[in-house]
Amino acid sequence: MNVTVLRINHRPTRDKRITTHVALTARAFGASTILVDQRDEELEDTIRDTVYRFGGDFRIESGVDPHRVMREFSGVKVHLTMYGIPVDQAVGRIREAAGDRGVLVVVGASKVPREYYEASDFNVAVTNQPISEVSALAIFLDRLFEGREMNAEFEARMRVIPSERGKRVVML
Amino acid sequence: MNVTVLRINHRPTRDKRITTHVALTARAFGASTILVDQRDEELEDTIRDTVYRFGGDFRIESGVDPHRVMREFSGVKVHLTMYGIPVDQAVGRIREAAGDRGVLVVVGASKVPREYYEASDFNVAVTNQPISEVSALAIFLDRLFEGREMNAEFEARMRVIPSERGKRVVML
Repeated sequence: MNVTVLRINHRPTRDKRITTHVALTARAFGASTILVDQRDEELEDTIRDTVYRFGGDFRIESGVDPHRVMREFSGVKVHLTMYGIPVDQAVGRIREAAGDRGVLVVVGASKVPREYYEASDFNVAVTNQPISEVSALAIFLDRLFEGREMNAEFEARMRVIPSERGKRVVML
Repeated sequence: MNVTVLRINHRPTRDKRITTHVALTARAFGASTILVDQRDEELEDTIRDTVYRFGGDFRIESGVDPHRVMREFSGVKVHLTMYGIPVDQAVGRIREAAGDRGVLVVVGASKVPREYYEASDFNVAVTNQPISEVSALAIFLDRLFEGREMNAEFEARMRVIPSERGKRVVML
């Protein structure tokens, strides 16, 4: 299933590191693309460098118009918010509704305007507690893909070999 | 099972927001305590304020000596690192090894010194990809508690009522 993450309210000075963590999580947990509303070339470079080294064809684009993305996306729109319905109740319905049309996951930094609650097909909570958009995204994608992303392999220049102690990396 | 998170290499200027997300994730996903190596009163205030409003008895302490914590902790020590063994292979062994002695989860910002790899009972990877310590912690705790943290209830002043659209919060 094709998943795009839409990051809204990104403030390059304040949110660069959190958005970087959102993007890395999106990539490692099986999303294909992240779209970021504010233009941020440094963020783009960081993520493209990771993709270059660790592989896959994950794509980042910043400076997109999020309203237009919401309007034009033809699949199922899911907004992650602590006020939503529990992910474990929602995820089956989302998978069914999406079919092969794909899923857009909206992840806000700071306050999310009401229109996103309205325009999303599902408002989904990963716990109804204050957590982090990074962990919310990880758990949501984990549930959506039923844990299969854990065994994903990437065509890569660098690969980590799991080890009990220390670091083993092979260059391919 | 009692879980303590140990955050190492926290740099108050650079890492405040990421460490805040680590702490909120720790709380929402069932850890009882977070220990942070560098003193950071602003971080402590943020987390205590969340606990005050949303409940539970989650505890934060900053300015601890991480070496001493590692040395004196009597349960199972788990270091989260992309170089470790897959979480889904490790988690059963960790649960078994811990019994009722508890688990210490070590979460680094930036480079983690070799000694933590050596002193940990398990070096565990949540995917062998570069992700985020925030999502790594969320997935690790989710696996450790077998998803039960999703339905945890906190004795709280504020509670979010899940809803399809918008925000519903009750003050108790």
